[in-house]
Amino acid sequence: MPSPAAASAVPGEPVALTRVRRLRADRARQVADVLRAQILRGDYPHRTLPDERALMLEFGESRNTVRDALDLLRCDGLVERQQGVGTLVTAKKYAHGLNRLMGLAETLREHGPITNEVRTAGPITPPRVVAQRLGVPAGEQVIYIERLRRLSGLPLSLDLTYLPSDVGAQLLAEDLVNEDVFALIERTSGRALGTAEIEMEAVNADPHSADVLEIPRGAAMLLLERLSHFDDGRPVDLEYIRFRGDRLTMRAEMRRA
Amino acid sequence: MPSPAAASAVPGEPVALTRVRRLRADRARQVADVLRAQILRGDYPHRTLPDERALMLEFGESRNTVRDALDLLRCDGLVERQQGVGTLVTAKKYAHGLNRLMGLAETLREHGPITNEVRTAGPITPPRVVAQRLGVPAGEQVIYIERLRRLSGLPLSLDLTYLPSDVGAQLLAEDLVNEDVFALIERTSGRALGTAEIEMEAVNADPHSADVLEIPRGAAMLLLERLSHFDDGRPVDLEYIRFRGDRLTMRAEMRRA
Repeated sequence: MPSPAAASAVPGEPVALTRVRRLRADRARQVADVLRAQILRGDYPHRTLPDERALMLEFGESRNTVRDALDLLRCDGLVERQQGVGTLVTAKKYAHGLNRLMGLAETLREHGPITNEVRTAGPITPPRVVAQRLGVPAGEQVIYIERLRRLSGLPLSLDLTYLPSDVGAQLLAEDLVNEDVFALIERTSGRALGTAEIEMEAVNADPHSADVLEIPRGAAMLLLERLSHFDDGRPVDLEYIRFRGDRLTMRAEMRRA
Repeated sequence: MPSPAAASAVPGEPVALTRVRRLRADRARQVADVLRAQILRGDYPHRTLPDERALMLEFGESRNTVRDALDLLRCDGLVERQQGVGTLVTAKKYAHGLNRLMGLAETLREHGPITNEVRTAGPITPPRVVAQRLGVPAGEQVIYIERLRRLSGLPLSLDLTYLPSDVGAQLLAEDLVNEDVFALIERTSGRALGTAEIEMEAVNADPHSADVLEIPRGAAMLLLERLSHFDDGRPVDLEYIRFRGDRLTMRAEMRRA
């Protein structure tokens, strides 16, 4: 993209407009961000990106800048270069909606089956703060379930789940391998979920989590804490979830008012 | 935390409940996640975490497991060990709400001043897909603004912003250093923003972005694409934003129905 024209052409008093020649790395990032969004939105269903010349024209950039932009996407695992073919989309990222409270299997149904490796499941005496958040008396047991979740066989997330015993114990006899905890809670309790508060971070994978999720150590993950409630407000499901950053995006609609 | 009791104590037909002895690394992660959430919620206003013995009691875990949990938090920059004092909270993370569309300065007002280093600002001819998303005819110029945003002087995010010319040109004469683009759009246009769609990813910082944001190469970042509209639905502000993962969390409320 051409650098912005002279700021002095603009009426008024421009404040701190930098006029320095832009670095190629800045221009490459700018190109990469636009291509990245196109890739994630599925604008390249046939997987082949336009060739370098077409991208140079489209973005008004030099060949080197376009190559640097493609390099950024390749480092993120979104594209790969194939000799004689060009640049191919390799991204396997799926969008998880942040507005509607849904389980993974519900959300990603069209993309493949979610299966859960149940790493542990059963009653534990939780730390006080977990009991508090679930509205359970201190010292009372809760059900703890730890699952490695896969989409079409490939790890997607690692979920640590705490449930009050009256709700959670019933789940232990259910099909935790193939069903979402949300769906199981609603079916076994006969009650509907209402709202959930989530807090989300980007973190680097520690070595052990990386091994479990089959990603490189230090790979970026989305780490969520999510507390879900029944529709009467009772807290019922506290989860700590690590999503592989290379496999999931979060989508939301926000309102100004 | 004690391992879940025998699954066979539970009525019904437990499916794929693993009975293996849990690795210390799994137990450490479980402890770390609970402590992490407490730290982010501000449960330790005096900054000192309980000592190892108290944590061992609270979580029902061995000293080694508790130490491993604290190591995980230290690697994420959330705590540090001070000889003779104990483990201190060092996290400087702030929550950005995902439900209400707000600018950074609006959101983080109580935590300190947001200042923006305007890296470039002015008209450009955008790539076709950017024009399309903004509802601008192909070949027509838009305003491009690139800002490094700081909270109390420390880099927080790098924002690449595209605005239709009729809206964006007016911003170039405004105080882009101290004001949110959202606030400036509404004031100069006299119109209210309505909704925005966001798509969010966790990515590792490329070397150049890492240098700009003053984080280690490969550090986890939140990468957002956000398209904001006027309240009549017209798209008006397309942004690509990199947030430092160690400085920001995203908070949202979700609804089941």
